[in-house]
Amino acid sequence: MKLSESTWREVEAYLEKSTGLIIPIGSTEQHGPVGLIGTDAICATAIAEASAEISNALTTPAICFTPAQFNETFPGTISISSTTLMYLVSDIVRSLSRQGFQYFYFLNGHGANLAPLKAVCHDLTAEYSRRETTAKIRFRIRSWWDYPQTNALRGQLFGAGEGLHGTPSEIAITRALLRNITAPPEMNVPPPLTEAFMKNHAGDFHLDAEHHRHQFPDGRVGSDSDLGTAEHGKHFLGIASQEATVDYNDFLNT
Amino acid sequence: MKLSESTWREVEAYLEKSTGLIIPIGSTEQHGPVGLIGTDAICATAIAEASAEISNALTTPAICFTPAQFNETFPGTISISSTTLMYLVSDIVRSLSRQGFQYFYFLNGHGANLAPLKAVCHDLTAEYSRRETTAKIRFRIRSWWDYPQTNALRGQLFGAGEGLHGTPSEIAITRALLRNITAPPEMNVPPPLTEAFMKNHAGDFHLDAEHHRHQFPDGRVGSDSDLGTAEHGKHFLGIASQEATVDYNDFLNT
Amino acid sequence: MKLSESTWREVEAYLEKSTGLIIPIGSTEQHGPVGLIGTDAICATAIAEASAEISNALTTPAICFTPAQFNETFPGTISISSTTLMYLVSDIVRSLSRQGFQYFYFLNGHGANLAPLKAVCHDLTAEYSRRETTAKIRFRIRSWWDYPQTNALRGQLFGAGEGLHGTPSEIAITRALLRNITAPPEMNVPPPLTEAFMKNHAGDFHLDAEHHRHQFPDGRVGSDSDLGTAEHGKHFLGIASQEATVDYNDFLNT
Amino acid sequence: MKLSESTWREVEAYLEKSTGLIIPIGSTEQHGPVGLIGTDAICATAIAEASAEISNALTTPAICFTPAQFNETFPGTISISSTTLMYLVSDIVRSLSRQGFQYFYFLNGHGANLAPLKAVCHDLTAEYSRRETTAKIRFRIRSWWDYPQTNALRGQLFGAGEGLHGTPSEIAITRALLRNITAPPEMNVPPPLTEAFMKNHAGDFHLDAEHHRHQFPDGRVGSDSDLGTAEHGKHFLGIASQEATVDYNDFLNT
Amino acid sequence: MKLSESTWREVEAYLEKSTGLIIPIGSTEQHGPVGLIGTDAICATAIAEASAEISNALTTPAICFTPAQFNETFPGTISISSTTLMYLVSDIVRSLSRQGFQYFYFLNGHGANLAPLKAVCHDLTAEYSRRETTAKIRFRIRSWWDYPQTNALRGQLFGAGEGLHGTPSEIAITRALLRNITAPPEMNVPPPLTEAFMKNHAGDFHLDAEHHRHQFPDGRVGSDSDLGTAEHGKHFLGIASQEATVDYNDFLNT
Amino acid sequence: MKLSESTWREVEAYLEKSTGLIIPIGSTEQHGPVGLIGTDAICATAIAEASAEISNALTTPAICFTPAQFNETFPGTISISSTTLMYLVSDIVRSLSRQGFQYFYFLNGHGANLAPLKAVCHDLTAEYSRRETTAKIRFRIRSWWDYPQTNALRGQLFGAGEGLHGTPSEIAITRALLRNITAPPEMNVPPPLTEAFMKNHAGDFHLDAEHHRHQFPDGRVGSDSDLGTAEHGKHFLGIASQEATVDYNDFLNT
Repeated sequence: MKLSESTWREVEAYLEKSTGLIIPIGSTEQHGPVGLIGTDAICATAIAEASAEISNALTTPAICFTPAQFNETFPGTISISSTTLMYLVSDIVRSLSRQGFQYFYFLNGHGANLAPLKAVCHDLTAEYSRRETTAKIRFRIRSWWDYPQTNALRGQLFGAGEGLHGTPSEIAITRALLRNITAPPEMNVPPPLTEAFMKNHAGDFHLDAEHHRHQFPDGRVGSDSDLGTAEHGKHFLGIASQEATVDYNDFLNT
Repeated sequence: MKLSESTWREVEAYLEKSTGLIIPIGSTEQHGPVGLIGTDAICATAIAEASAEISNALTTPAICFTPAQFNETFPGTISISSTTLMYLVSDIVRSLSRQGFQYFYFLNGHGANLAPLKAVCHDLTAEYSRRETTAKIRFRIRSWWDYPQTNALRGQLFGAGEGLHGTPSEIAITRALLRNITAPPEMNVPPPLTEAFMKNHAGDFHLDAEHHRHQFPDGRVGSDSDLGTAEHGKHFLGIASQEATVDYNDFLNT
Repeated sequence: MKLSESTWREVEAYLEKSTGLIIPIGSTEQHGPVGLIGTDAICATAIAEASAEISNALTTPAICFTPAQFNETFPGTISISSTTLMYLVSDIVRSLSRQGFQYFYFLNGHGANLAPLKAVCHDLTAEYSRRETTAKIRFRIRSWWDYPQTNALRGQLFGAGEGLHGTPSEIAITRALLRNITAPPEMNVPPPLTEAFMKNHAGDFHLDAEHHRHQFPDGRVGSDSDLGTAEHGKHFLGIASQEATVDYNDFLNT
Repeated sequence: MKLSESTWREVEAYLEKSTGLIIPIGSTEQHGPVGLIGTDAICATAIAEASAEISNALTTPAICFTPAQFNETFPGTISISSTTLMYLVSDIVRSLSRQGFQYFYFLNGHGANLAPLKAVCHDLTAEYSRRETTAKIRFRIRSWWDYPQTNALRGQLFGAGEGLHGTPSEIAITRALLRNITAPPEMNVPPPLTEAFMKNHAGDFHLDAEHHRHQFPDGRVGSDSDLGTAEHGKHFLGIASQEATVDYNDFLNT
Repeated sequence: MKLSESTWREVEAYLEKSTGLIIPIGSTEQHGPVGLIGTDAICATAIAEASAEISNALTTPAICFTPAQFNETFPGTISISSTTLMYLVSDIVRSLSRQGFQYFYFLNGHGANLAPLKAVCHDLTAEYSRRETTAKIRFRIRSWWDYPQTNALRGQLFGAGEGLHGTPSEIAITRALLRNITAPPEMNVPPPLTEAFMKNHAGDFHLDAEHHRHQFPDGRVGSDSDLGTAEHGKHFLGIASQEATVDYNDFLNT
Repeated sequence: MKLSESTWREVEAYLEKSTGLIIPIGSTEQHGPVGLIGTDAICATAIAEASAEISNALTTPAICFTPAQFNETFPGTISISSTTLMYLVSDIVRSLSRQGFQYFYFLNGHGANLAPLKAVCHDLTAEYSRRETTAKIRFRIRSWWDYPQTNALRGQLFGAGEGLHGTPSEIAITRALLRNITAPPEMNVPPPLTEAFMKNHAGDFHLDAEHHRHQFPDGRVGSDSDLGTAEHGKHFLGIASQEATVDYNDFLNT
């Protein structure tokens, strides 16, 4: 059930059965030569909506403008500050909480969202707790690629070629849903990332935009994007949405 | 050309031809018994994308979370503060401006966006002007229903039934694009709004949410939503996108 | 009754009869070769106080520092950001509301105030509504030149010469109240503004300060300031304050 | 020379001779049974303008909304937060600095302004210093009662009756300028304040509004307001404006 | 070399050899019946200073007030918001960067710091990158328990008894350095945490303070604090500071 | 009793006897050729803890990052903005207040802290007062050098050599506690400060950092630092902590 395509009466009825909802959150940033700028929001939304269909959950429109400073010199990237994202999430939660929503499940498609999302959930919890409201709020944040089977599939299909950005798994999903962009001839198989690089840049903890583009001139970070096919994409959508459903239902029971 | 479905190389090529883009902005709020919660974003996006196809312009994803405090007691409405919207728009503009974008055209679908949009454009202009950057920024804000022919058509088709919220013209567009919800039997023809009411509440300058719901219990504000048909919707989409194209091109020449 | 010239006991007595007050809001910005920098605050204050005398209303000191970035390269202009104005208005309202004031009538003398004023009234209404206080707040914002008869008089006396800034009607009022500056010989009759210009710059939606001064080198925007005489000024003060009184009383009944 | 009653050309000419100006800053708060709510702004403005006449300096309109939380339960008091005042002062300084103003002299009439004024001057200095602008900014903050001869006169005329709020010296000035309110019969001679009280509450470092009103039910803090006559007021205006002139000229030479 | 115990000349000399420094960051929050409220800052500082002695690095005073809302109902806990921590870190970095520091190594002792630290490093990088300064900034954030050998030692010594809060490893360090508090007789061996709990609460992603205290009434989260001895503490200090040194030197080479 | 070295149970017990605590606040800034960068925090902490031992009071860790923009070009100085300090203090107070603390005594070691501390105490008082909480908050701010006998001793021992920064009294304390740095041969006896300078720069109201370093090239402001010996330092610690105890106990009775 999509919030944006429902009426308020339908949401009122929904609230009698459930006080949870799923908020997809992505980004608007370059994803390499064969990746779409909206990849992260597209993936998160598709998985959220597929999962919501299984469990009759409600999904909001995606939060699609998020922090991505490292990609800002690639045209088309829109990066907002962590604090702006935190203000936005706060307002969204306060508004829905007033109507009775209690369980906010963020289905994430962009590594750099994790830190500001956790930070704002801390502050919102403090805010509600301090004002001794009877309103209850609960948060869970999950990146779709971290669901165990989805994650296993990534390794199994692409190995080191999965990389960190413009991953074949996310490209596969957008190919399944929207466009199959042919790789330009000069697009190489990138050398695998070192473990140290992976550790130091987890959660998109990257250097500044000039440096980042210089280091990764076509935008991919260690990912052999072209490995991902539309067929793989359907597979990922199926598995990830199943796992999201299980995890979301578990969340509602906390 | 949709930003979210393009690659950064395509945007790079676009920037060689144009430094303008269109940012649809809507809301996530109740729109009465037959209106979708995403109506404003859906309408603004559809008109922006149809217009962009005509003029080969670029459109960003819609800003869909915006101020709508008066509707907050209707379940499903998400209202953010004016200041949060202002932070968000500032960050979006700063990011795109860095890459060379200069003309920011907001295609608006929600009355309450006008005040914070104008206010933030003031502040952004001051910011760029004071720091004596060579970057140029220009803003135009247009609500689709204000295009002259579109506006004339609204009056001609629906007269006083157009009203202020859940208007048959916006319902018509969502019916053309997504869902045709049957009006519940108890949905009446609302009495026409007085001129004084129209004047005092222009730009969604409404009272608080409790009062608003009490005054307009089914969510419509003077609008006979059911008058709008899918056929009307196609008509509106055609005319408004044509007018948006003309106005956008005029804007690029300022 | 002027707040700044009253004692707290007088205000306490006032509150037993009325919970409304009038807040004049102007600007501190250049008004062309024969216009005073304080014009907007002077006009708004004079009309507010004249009206308050008729209806025994209370007026606060004027808010005289407001957004006017487009005039910042003209010496003497003081422009604050929209957000600063919003913080200031919020604090003023919260303070007075605590004492029992409920009806806040902004008598406006500066186009660029409209957007931030509407934006902050939205946010204040949300704030009070969400915290479920029993305090009631109501807002009305009116620019004095928009009162119907006042507006008609502007057209009738000055036609296209009224223009947008340094208007003969506002010059007339400051001439009636303070100083009659002789027009320098080089001050011309400006060419009338186009309709498109009027539409695109309503509410002082102007370009940056460098550009603005280049386009309007003596500071007037389409206004033949010198047409306004002290005699006209008295006329405007009389009519506008009458209309303000009627509108304010109407507001108290909402 | 009053900024609000000058044209931009007159300010342009002024800037060729001087880059300094005087900003009066007061409050809008109760001042006891015979004191006006605008007392602090009225006194600061009158002294600033009288001094500016002597030295041909420029004065801005007064900042009249300032922090005064302790008086907020007395009707008519308007208290803003320290941070809002800091935002406002920052914006005023940035705007004037852009035009070439360098010396900002705050002529203060309200004890609680001192802390936020000093704090914001710190932050503005850091801001200009860090961005390595060539713009120079200098600040001086003076409360009129602290000028040595003015201060001596206060002690000489009123002794312990001067007190801390609703002081006979400020009442004297408003009586000279505006209204002479007769003391109500029940208004007593307040017991003198202890030295410890004076020390702990310097700069209006008072307890909360409920407590403050309970402790000082008619609003005066140790001041025998009625001692101040219009004749005294003229005396204070003369001396304080002379001393302000000397101090302002000294400031311009730093 | 401790910043707080150095002179500016010593720091000036240091800057000729190195542009890096170590910023310990902890918390001020309850740590169970035998844990000190300052545990996290004490551990981070001790390891940072021991490491700095090995590599001749500079350490700042610890940031000791940080987000810990979940512990706020335990007396003595001081929790600040994520955004306040972000403002503080921003100011610290801007100040040191101005003097030539480039490598900011956060040695962390509190899980809930990770999210706001990462978020603010994102925003600072964007800020420096956008303003095209020549100043270079680099960040690394490490929790001491995550150094590989230190982490291995935790498992080896305490197994599941290590838990998440009031861990025997941190208690061991404070026992080595400051106080050895005897466990109260009622302090039990807590049941081991489930894997799901560990995953859902990583980075101190805990529920609100009332709930948290109810769930963990003595403040420990799955940790058998009393297992940690002063002897263990010395061991941890030795290993962790060695590993910190290696990692810090690696950081300086990025 | 030091908060950071106590358990929550010990603080819980403390709260049954007292709702007050002492918050030392210093700075991290250059203190001349023989002064430590942490001088202000070191002095404030030592006096606070010595006083707390006398009166069984609780002390928090020091706030050691504070505003000191004037010293920012001396390496090692860390200066934060006044507003950041205000956010930090607000959060600390809100957190402790929730647990029952009511009396917040700031023992200050840095002149530039006074203005933002007073400003934030104003705003916090307003916040608590407006929301009509039953929580009581009381603030007192004292610089240790202002205690009467301590102040007298400064004059008696060092006369004009005490100066304003890098004072022999503060150097004496750090020499007693930590390091005795030998004065470099070129360190002169500075000329005494004029009364006008003292008045205009009270509370560290200094010019920008470039100017400040140019004017005071070795960092001392009129202070003959080397006059202070470790023996003097012990004397100051003894007297100041006695006076702090008396003043703190007086505060608890308000």
